[in-house]
Amino acid sequence: MKGRKKEHLEISINEDVQCSYNYWDDVALVHNALPEIDMKEIDTTWREFGKEMKAPIIIAGMTGGFEEAGIINESLAKIAEKYQIGMGVGSQRAGLEDEKVAKSYSIIADYKIPLKIANVGAPQLLEWKKPIEMAEKAIKMIKADVLAIHLNFLQESIQVEGDRVAKGCLEKIREVSSSLSTPVIVKETGAGISMEVAKKLLETDIAGIDIGGMGGTSFAAIEAYRAKKRGDKIQEELGHIFWDWGIPTPYSLLEVAEICQDAGMVIIATGGIRNGLDVARAIALGADAAGIASSLITSDSAEKKMEVCFRSLKTAMFLTGCKNIKELKDVEVWID
Amino acid sequence: MKGRKKEHLEISINEDVQCSYNYWDDVALVHNALPEIDMKEIDTTWREFGKEMKAPIIIAGMTGGFEEAGIINESLAKIAEKYQIGMGVGSQRAGLEDEKVAKSYSIIADYKIPLKIANVGAPQLLEWKKPIEMAEKAIKMIKADVLAIHLNFLQESIQVEGDRVAKGCLEKIREVSSSLSTPVIVKETGAGISMEVAKKLLETDIAGIDIGGMGGTSFAAIEAYRAKKRGDKIQEELGHIFWDWGIPTPYSLLEVAEICQDAGMVIIATGGIRNGLDVARAIALGADAAGIASSLITSDSAEKKMEVCFRSLKTAMFLTGCKNIKELKDVEVWID
Amino acid sequence: MKGRKKEHLEISINEDVQCSYNYWDDVALVHNALPEIDMKEIDTTWREFGKEMKAPIIIAGMTGGFEEAGIINESLAKIAEKYQIGMGVGSQRAGLEDEKVAKSYSIIADYKIPLKIANVGAPQLLEWKKPIEMAEKAIKMIKADVLAIHLNFLQESIQVEGDRVAKGCLEKIREVSSSLSTPVIVKETGAGISMEVAKKLLETDIAGIDIGGMGGTSFAAIEAYRAKKRGDKIQEELGHIFWDWGIPTPYSLLEVAEICQDAGMVIIATGGIRNGLDVARAIALGADAAGIASSLITSDSAEKKMEVCFRSLKTAMFLTGCKNIKELKDVEVWID
Amino acid sequence: MKGRKKEHLEISINEDVQCSYNYWDDVALVHNALPEIDMKEIDTTWREFGKEMKAPIIIAGMTGGFEEAGIINESLAKIAEKYQIGMGVGSQRAGLEDEKVAKSYSIIADYKIPLKIANVGAPQLLEWKKPIEMAEKAIKMIKADVLAIHLNFLQESIQVEGDRVAKGCLEKIREVSSSLSTPVIVKETGAGISMEVAKKLLETDIAGIDIGGMGGTSFAAIEAYRAKKRGDKIQEELGHIFWDWGIPTPYSLLEVAEICQDAGMVIIATGGIRNGLDVARAIALGADAAGIASSLITSDSAEKKMEVCFRSLKTAMFLTGCKNIKELKDVEVWID
Repeated sequence: MKGRKKEHLEISINEDVQCSYNYWDDVALVHNALPEIDMKEIDTTWREFGKEMKAPIIIAGMTGGFEEAGIINESLAKIAEKYQIGMGVGSQRAGLEDEKVAKSYSIIADYKIPLKIANVGAPQLLEWKKPIEMAEKAIKMIKADVLAIHLNFLQESIQVEGDRVAKGCLEKIREVSSSLSTPVIVKETGAGISMEVAKKLLETDIAGIDIGGMGGTSFAAIEAYRAKKRGDKIQEELGHIFWDWGIPTPYSLLEVAEICQDAGMVIIATGGIRNGLDVARAIALGADAAGIASSLITSDSAEKKMEVCFRSLKTAMFLTGCKNIKELKDVEVWID
Repeated sequence: MKGRKKEHLEISINEDVQCSYNYWDDVALVHNALPEIDMKEIDTTWREFGKEMKAPIIIAGMTGGFEEAGIINESLAKIAEKYQIGMGVGSQRAGLEDEKVAKSYSIIADYKIPLKIANVGAPQLLEWKKPIEMAEKAIKMIKADVLAIHLNFLQESIQVEGDRVAKGCLEKIREVSSSLSTPVIVKETGAGISMEVAKKLLETDIAGIDIGGMGGTSFAAIEAYRAKKRGDKIQEELGHIFWDWGIPTPYSLLEVAEICQDAGMVIIATGGIRNGLDVARAIALGADAAGIASSLITSDSAEKKMEVCFRSLKTAMFLTGCKNIKELKDVEVWID
Repeated sequence: MKGRKKEHLEISINEDVQCSYNYWDDVALVHNALPEIDMKEIDTTWREFGKEMKAPIIIAGMTGGFEEAGIINESLAKIAEKYQIGMGVGSQRAGLEDEKVAKSYSIIADYKIPLKIANVGAPQLLEWKKPIEMAEKAIKMIKADVLAIHLNFLQESIQVEGDRVAKGCLEKIREVSSSLSTPVIVKETGAGISMEVAKKLLETDIAGIDIGGMGGTSFAAIEAYRAKKRGDKIQEELGHIFWDWGIPTPYSLLEVAEICQDAGMVIIATGGIRNGLDVARAIALGADAAGIASSLITSDSAEKKMEVCFRSLKTAMFLTGCKNIKELKDVEVWID
Repeated sequence: MKGRKKEHLEISINEDVQCSYNYWDDVALVHNALPEIDMKEIDTTWREFGKEMKAPIIIAGMTGGFEEAGIINESLAKIAEKYQIGMGVGSQRAGLEDEKVAKSYSIIADYKIPLKIANVGAPQLLEWKKPIEMAEKAIKMIKADVLAIHLNFLQESIQVEGDRVAKGCLEKIREVSSSLSTPVIVKETGAGISMEVAKKLLETDIAGIDIGGMGGTSFAAIEAYRAKKRGDKIQEELGHIFWDWGIPTPYSLLEVAEICQDAGMVIIATGGIRNGLDVARAIALGADAAGIASSLITSDSAEKKMEVCFRSLKTAMFLTGCKNIKELKDVEVWID
């Protein structure tokens, strides 16, 4: 598994594995020529889960489970601490099943990060004999404030080693979310949440949904590259066929934001977020916060990139006349 | 005729004779992040015409009538047997009129194929003195379970040797379909079926329609290449003018699926189908099965291509949470 | 004037002076898989103005007034005679004002052309002291069956020598159309007829409208090239600005076809027509006939091009199941 | 500040800093084949602010504050005098705060320009202790007929030296517009005016709005180049993110034209105007006049460009049958 995870990371950094189109480009915030605020008074604070973050930007969980992943997680943790924003880790399965690699995740607990998000896969909850204990262990590993249960059946179904057992996931989500004291969110990993799925999730005890839609990194694309490297033409073609599978993040948001808000759910939008303008677009479409993933680790400097995110979020807020995140939610949006 | 058929096949393998746009790219199945099924329990079985196939994928009839065609048909028959799916042959006119080439079709009868589809042209039914006997002979030739009567007036009208007599075809379809004990389907060959044509066909005794729409191989394009080779600039230009003539397969499906279903007709969608995701798209739009043609013979390995079709169909079913083909019909579709 | 007309012709043959987009590509005729006619029984005959033509295709008036123009007109006249279709000539002003060049127009009278269309400009009717006599002289010059009065204010306003007096044109059209025994049509030359203009024309005694819309040769483009050659950057830029000015022919047809039909007007569609499929599209959108211009003289062989037009018109009629032009008018059309 | 202003000008002349798409290309005026006017009787006179201009074209304020800016302003003033049209200057802050550079603005007062527009920034009105006196000084400096207060928060928020205090601007606009005898207009500088902002402005005493929308020069783009030159990757990326920020000029016009007209406001459309056809499009969409900026100074000859503007405006008026600017407002427009 280590080798696979490392391969995933390397491919996503070195190859073009982005979806064909980034749908955030279709979302325009309406300019306010008379913002009637001062830029310096803009407050990007995001309060949620009893925590206070300097911005509704989350460093999405990306990796873990091997030495280099620990190095990446530490460097991201430094940024999360410096900018006082939320941060997740990649699927903790490896760390839960092999204590030797747990450090590659738990390293982030050494940093003062206001919101740490643990991460286990829904398929693993099914496999593990004691899923609740494992979830608690994952939380403890990184001293997490929130647990994300991820749904990644696109990836599972494309990779040869994939875990294609999905029956019972909803029940496990229900069990885990009702048993833990830590808030639980459910997180898609690049194919989006439909209305129908949102409705099912609303009947559990989860506290939020990360819609993780299509538009950024394509896991099918990564699998296409992996298959190519090992000469497996069949799986390579499969990866190409599903390269753009999924609901684009902004369209997924449009589908589910209203019913989630009405139900008091936290909505995080991940998938294709490249900068603070995309974060602002997500929030104007109904998200509470947005997750940034590959844009961060593929830039020359992740720290500079985060600085760009903060400045571009503030600029978008200034140019739409929003003093705070709450006002940003009411900004007029034009969709192409 | 042999030379012409061979030329057709060679051009369709060696030249770019695809329509300018494949309209299946406009059809998106809505992702189900919580499929709540296990991939291994997915059942792609298709039952129709009293037969059971492992998937609603048909190897569309493409060739016949000369030696190399027999080799191709045999290799496709092996795939159809291995995968237990339906298979058709190219127009059997040559084999019916010249026993020496009948083997290039009948070779498929040597294989255990669950659904074999004989193939005669509507214009030939008009020409032949005893069309019903000829149709029975065609069925017998390959031990067919179904007879397809094809409509190919685009090709007939573009090729110089074309048979441009269409008057009376409907009556012949009526006669043949009411006289034979074998079920009869009517099959377009790349230009699609309109609502008006579907209504006329519903008044005959046929059992199904293969809408064979625009989007895959363009017969006008093939004729453009043939004309170019013999220096006939007029026919070459004619081929270019009609290169993209016809109703795109998904739009043809949208037109006719509902009235055909209501009438109890089997609907097969051929035209631009490249893989199992396209098959799933066709079924979600109302087809019972989909036919794959040029994508199979232009790939490096037709067998590997079929494996890709099966895996991608299953993947699409898994990611939309469909345990069987019936459920796939109800999947939500977004059209661009 | 001779030099200018020659320059026009040379530029339109040698340079790319087509509009940026040909809107006929947006018009799709719905395929009829069961045409239920025989191609050989298709009758493309067009009867109008008491004449019978073998097809509703008109060789649009393009040139005249200098020696080479006479050669071109003669070669086009041979095609019109051979194919028994209508033919026009370019603006006859030069021939009316200078008898020495009248032969470049009158040459077509030596051929048995079923419908010959004389051509004078609306601005000239204003300038001439005796416009009705001049119009009669133009008719006599080529033994015309119809007189076209052309409106070409786009060209007039872009070319430095342009005639920019438009006031009174409608009154002159009224006078001439009510005074002559020969039927009169009004013809735009590349910028189309709006609903408002059509309504004004319906109040005169003209017998038809050639909507001459945008999509084929751009007169503004020709003027851009002429200006460039003489180093006039201002007029060159003006030509570029108005390169795509005008109402696209199919959209102009959609605007005016119905009210013209109701008023018993003949509607001819010129502008961007490249072949018989475009002719069929125009007729399905409401035209009685279509004019072909630059596509004819820029092809290697105008005669072969006409053969392509006839074959492609018949093919389009066959594939939509139309036995005659009247039926073609009722074919279903999809517009992008 | 001088260096920055010079840099702005140089970059906007030498680099590609245009928005990705010019939305005026989506606006089509409906051709009038029978204009029934004579081109020479077309009257492009624009009367506003008690002045008479030969056309509703304004040379938008672009520069000032350093020696070369004075040279440019003088050459533009010569054109404004020759063509008898309105002209503005760049932000006069530099000239107000440093008398040594005032001449680079006041030079235009030496020319007989029918409408001179002074220019101060809304943020400066906030900073200055005596904003009304400063505004009067700016008016006096160029003997202005109108004062424009510009809103340029896109630029301010992107450039590192930017003035990001926007609170109180509306109140200052109210104060200045009610205190001065000279009419005041408010002018966006490339990001457009929304309905909401227009409504706020209608409650002040201003006489007009220059909607200065997106589509022409992008100030964010200029800042991207400036940042690149000084090696500031963060600000460079910020410039790229906001390159196409703003409401496209024609869409901004569609938003606000009606309510502004009803309120008796003068509406000027600047942003992406390249020639007289764009001016005509703007007027047909509801503007009273249009401002041309970068197209003028990036052409080989600004004077020839203005000649093109006049001729193309007249041509557009001729081809839509408009004798004067009032009629142009009623021309039918098709938007893509």
